[in-house]
Amino acid sequence: MDVLNTLKYENDVLRGYITWSGILLIKLLLMAFLTGFNRFRKGAYENPEDIRGRENVEIKKDEDVERVRRAHLNDLENIPAFLFAGLAYVFSNPNVDLALWLFRIGVLARIGHTIVYAIYPVRQPARFITFIITLLITLFMIIASIAAFFHL
Amino acid sequence: MDVLNTLKYENDVLRGYITWSGILLIKLLLMAFLTGFNRFRKGAYENPEDIRGRENVEIKKDEDVERVRRAHLNDLENIPAFLFAGLAYVFSNPNVDLALWLFRIGVLARIGHTIVYAIYPVRQPARFITFIITLLITLFMIIASIAAFFHL
Amino acid sequence: MDVLNTLKYENDVLRGYITWSGILLIKLLLMAFLTGFNRFRKGAYENPEDIRGRENVEIKKDEDVERVRRAHLNDLENIPAFLFAGLAYVFSNPNVDLALWLFRIGVLARIGHTIVYAIYPVRQPARFITFIITLLITLFMIIASIAAFFHL
Repeated sequence: MDVLNTLKYENDVLRGYITWSGILLIKLLLMAFLTGFNRFRKGAYENPEDIRGRENVEIKKDEDVERVRRAHLNDLENIPAFLFAGLAYVFSNPNVDLALWLFRIGVLARIGHTIVYAIYPVRQPARFITFIITLLITLFMIIASIAAFFHL
Repeated sequence: MDVLNTLKYENDVLRGYITWSGILLIKLLLMAFLTGFNRFRKGAYENPEDIRGRENVEIKKDEDVERVRRAHLNDLENIPAFLFAGLAYVFSNPNVDLALWLFRIGVLARIGHTIVYAIYPVRQPARFITFIITLLITLFMIIASIAAFFHL
Repeated sequence: MDVLNTLKYENDVLRGYITWSGILLIKLLLMAFLTGFNRFRKGAYENPEDIRGRENVEIKKDEDVERVRRAHLNDLENIPAFLFAGLAYVFSNPNVDLALWLFRIGVLARIGHTIVYAIYPVRQPARFITFIITLLITLFMIIASIAAFFHL
């Protein structure tokens, strides 16, 4: 297996990984603005310096804000793992079509997770399904990478 | 120093990095199921949609669940740092035996951290020792990488 | 575009990326000690095993400790994204001076964020400005990388 050959512009797996990773990272970064929007809408802040001189705002926990925070924390628990697993998987020189579909479905499921958790709450198992899809893809990519490179 | 030579299948440092990173990522992903197991066992949930139509469950904080959450958050504070530091360290073409032992001990200490924190709580300094071992290895790999590539 | 040429010791973008990433990771890891220092100073802990046999300490939330925790969590929301974006950006073979300045400013702004949030709280918009600088640099690097490698 030639790892170096996977790091070429001509490798669609590398290009797809960078494109879909970028889309997922943009989604992750937008969570901060979703939190900020809900804090502003509900007047609920965490730090004294954020409410100084403003009216109708206070230090309090608000359920809408906390919901976005939980979705954001769930992202932190899953997105870096997906991206590390994806990079190792790129190195393992996988089938191009399979790899691209794993990136596409994994990223879209994560975007779906944010929608059904933080934007428009939907009854279970909507959130569980979107969560488990990306997690299973991450696990698959990890196991495929370990299988390709195994050395303890 | 030839960075490209470190990205070859023949490089046991790269293979060990991918293998041990994969093991650590699987451990990280399993934390979600450990949380889920404790939520189910104690009937303690965070979201209204998770308890709809179920009996003996409620929205509440439970100490066993929160303990796993704290262990998971501690993972997020340390595992991505360990993995980024490890990748830079692979690029720096380190001694093979040293690098493999750092990966092995760093990952096993993190698994130990989860055990003594979230699964079978042990009195201090058990948790502190497992925590500091991985952290010191991470710091060492960062400093070795900066030393090899230093350019501000 | 030749991705492999970006992975050479002679590439100052790669060297700058590893150096500044390392500095940022060291800052991230030091947050644990800042939390520990504040827990000790205020006697505020989260786990029963941390206060066993000690005097003047208890299980409680303390605002100084929680402030550092919030700064740390904000790091987790932004630093891995910055590092993944930076790595993809290195692969895209960017202008050397531009890339180095993005790394320098992005990392220094994050260090500034910690100072005005967790060490010496300053009134807004100090924290917001330091936050948004690194975030905009991260977004720019993501978009530049997607533009260079685009493949869905």
